[in-house]
Amino acid sequence: MQSRSRQDLQDLVREQLQVLLEQKNFQGAKALLVPVQVADIAASIEGLPEATQAIAFRLLSKEESIEVFEYLDPSVQQTLLEDFKRQDVQEIVDNMSPDDRARLFDELPAKVVRRLLQQLSPEERDATALLLGYAPNTAGRIMTPEYLSLKENLTITQALAQIRSQADVRETIYYIYVTDDARRLTGILSLRDLILAQPEETIGSIMTREVVFVNTNTDQEEVARTIQHYDFVAIPVVDAEQRLVGIVTVDDVLDILEQETTEDIYKLGGLEAGGDNYFQTNLFTVARKRVVWLFILLITNSATAAVITNQEDILEKVVALTAFIPLLIDTGGNVGAQSSTVVIRGLNTEDIRSHEALNIIRREAIAGILLGAMLGTVVIVWAYFLQANISVALAVGISLFSICVLASVSGSALPFLFRAMGLDPALMSAPFITTAVDVLGVLIYLNVARMILGL
Amino acid sequence: MQSRSRQDLQDLVREQLQVLLEQKNFQGAKALLVPVQVADIAASIEGLPEATQAIAFRLLSKEESIEVFEYLDPSVQQTLLEDFKRQDVQEIVDNMSPDDRARLFDELPAKVVRRLLQQLSPEERDATALLLGYAPNTAGRIMTPEYLSLKENLTITQALAQIRSQADVRETIYYIYVTDDARRLTGILSLRDLILAQPEETIGSIMTREVVFVNTNTDQEEVARTIQHYDFVAIPVVDAEQRLVGIVTVDDVLDILEQETTEDIYKLGGLEAGGDNYFQTNLFTVARKRVVWLFILLITNSATAAVITNQEDILEKVVALTAFIPLLIDTGGNVGAQSSTVVIRGLNTEDIRSHEALNIIRREAIAGILLGAMLGTVVIVWAYFLQANISVALAVGISLFSICVLASVSGSALPFLFRAMGLDPALMSAPFITTAVDVLGVLIYLNVARMILGL
Repeated sequence: MQSRSRQDLQDLVREQLQVLLEQKNFQGAKALLVPVQVADIAASIEGLPEATQAIAFRLLSKEESIEVFEYLDPSVQQTLLEDFKRQDVQEIVDNMSPDDRARLFDELPAKVVRRLLQQLSPEERDATALLLGYAPNTAGRIMTPEYLSLKENLTITQALAQIRSQADVRETIYYIYVTDDARRLTGILSLRDLILAQPEETIGSIMTREVVFVNTNTDQEEVARTIQHYDFVAIPVVDAEQRLVGIVTVDDVLDILEQETTEDIYKLGGLEAGGDNYFQTNLFTVARKRVVWLFILLITNSATAAVITNQEDILEKVVALTAFIPLLIDTGGNVGAQSSTVVIRGLNTEDIRSHEALNIIRREAIAGILLGAMLGTVVIVWAYFLQANISVALAVGISLFSICVLASVSGSALPFLFRAMGLDPALMSAPFITTAVDVLGVLIYLNVARMILGL
Repeated sequence: MQSRSRQDLQDLVREQLQVLLEQKNFQGAKALLVPVQVADIAASIEGLPEATQAIAFRLLSKEESIEVFEYLDPSVQQTLLEDFKRQDVQEIVDNMSPDDRARLFDELPAKVVRRLLQQLSPEERDATALLLGYAPNTAGRIMTPEYLSLKENLTITQALAQIRSQADVRETIYYIYVTDDARRLTGILSLRDLILAQPEETIGSIMTREVVFVNTNTDQEEVARTIQHYDFVAIPVVDAEQRLVGIVTVDDVLDILEQETTEDIYKLGGLEAGGDNYFQTNLFTVARKRVVWLFILLITNSATAAVITNQEDILEKVVALTAFIPLLIDTGGNVGAQSSTVVIRGLNTEDIRSHEALNIIRREAIAGILLGAMLGTVVIVWAYFLQANISVALAVGISLFSICVLASVSGSALPFLFRAMGLDPALMSAPFITTAVDVLGVLIYLNVARMILGL
């Protein structure tokens, strides 16, 4: 090897790299680059066909990639970044298995992220998401590069001059972020701090060192809640080495919260929440998504039908009992929905914590008793008025009371149970509440009627 | 009158005013002040007992009140503003009828609003709401005085000096508002505009003249949607004369949207949405609020019970039919909820406009047909499996198909109907959908069964 010239080595690496990439042996390509000098990697990448340049670059470890990137000529850096947008490059990455991608791709260096994000529109950013390597619905996906960052040792005068020269950032400056030489986030200040300071003071002396930040892999809902909690207008996003790579602004958070809320509401309404816009979705897809929950309902109704079939004798003798089954089922369903709506919304907005479960279930049980007492009493009169049969009226009233208590307890308890099991309360609660209320409700009703009627 | 000294006149006005206020004759007190000189009103007010000073001041017309306020000694201005917080003053105003209050109280002058808001915490602002005269849930109630305003003719150097001197405003400056001598909003600029401008330029020459603003009486949800639409971090609030009186910031908007969303979700869940925190509400109040919707359900169920009672003969002959009533009711209710959830959420987020109604109802009808076809087919097999009666199975399947179509059409159409009638779709739709689906569903079911069974 020592006798080879530098040129030979670069050619050799480039040829091997090209062969491995064409064979889609990304593992091999990644391994090949490890012992090679940074300068040689850079030269080898420059010599590759365009479609594989970006892939080879993404295979580098994070430390290597920043060094290689710095080594490249600015015009080559530019070409490389443009490759991230190329359709054929996207397809190569798209065809890797997600596992492979996660194993092969390190995070991008902060400098590259910034350069890349500045070139991409939000739509393009979404399209290049695979190459960026950030998971969907994370801070990495929603951050923007439109922030101002300064170094600690600048004086106020120098800082103002630098801000004036950075005319490409958007008009509204939320905060100014302070980074050290390794681009690590060290502080934050407002434009007002800058204006109020003396010209010869340094940024480091007036900045706030306690900065609240999120990571590139923080879930977007968590990002939104953090911004909301602190009343921020923007929050910095850092990578695994604390390097500033972007910011998330409050206007994006508003859209995220609206989208998450729609998902919550859809789930409560028995709709599968998709990321897509419903009004642009094919109607067959809409029906397919909705039918899932309705089939679950069908299965749980087998139990209800079985209970009724089992008790056919009493219904045959006193057909009047049938007239009140819809009322009992409707009321049970609604009382259950009222309790679960309060608990699920409370869990989602974090107004309710899991450790409060017992307290809240007790509250709901009492509310159910009160509701049941009011409704049950009225219903006895109402049912007697409709059917002039006091035994049936009593059976309906007593059953309604029991169903109200049952529904409010299961409506409040099941969301906590599902949350504790790591399941989504909004998605899981409705089928189980419906089953509990329908099956147990009808069972209670027919047995109470049996006792009162002496059958 | 001419022979009286100024002192006598002031004493007379003050005495009469005091008598009228003690008699709670606010109308009379207001009328008394009209022909009196501003300086005399000021002196009369100063002479009143403290508890009535603020009331007398609030009875002045807007033009008078600003003149009277300017005439008062700064220490008296201060005392007057402090009176707004006094419990006994609050009680006097609280005891006026809302009509009276609206008729007697003009808007407060912009200057007084600013002074007042600066002294009040958000909690106190809420407590003094009656005296402020802004309706609940309007921009006037949620605005804050923590904004920076400058005059057009200032140079950049002067402006920066003025900003440095206003150290009492909060740290984050969103925008700088520009007002004329009458405090009317004329422009807006960012701190960045200020930093980028040449020192000798004037504010008027660099500001943006197209300012989006809201009025003190704009509904808070409308304020939130405006901020969200324009991606603002704050929006100025002006009074009826275009005078700047406050700003609403995006962090308040986040809280408002969350609160409005909770109300939407509660309504969809059949809960009356109250302003209060549910978890601090008395359980009797909780039960009372929930029971309203359940009583409506009881009334609509009378129709369902009547239909069943009317058709008792068929149920008596084929008791097996009863076993499927819960399934039909549950499915109808859920298909209706799915359609209405999508439409109501869409109307609330303005993703759906009223003129799209026909298009959307048609979409939902087709979705209902698809769902009905899938479910109906499966249900025929399922019902046959459960009861081994092909006639009953067919009746269940056909009815389920009809119910799916009925539920998706009424679920999507009723929200539009209620919106068009000026009613809240979220609150009104559920009872009517339940009724339509229950009554018509059972009617369809029993009649289809009658035909198929040849009874």
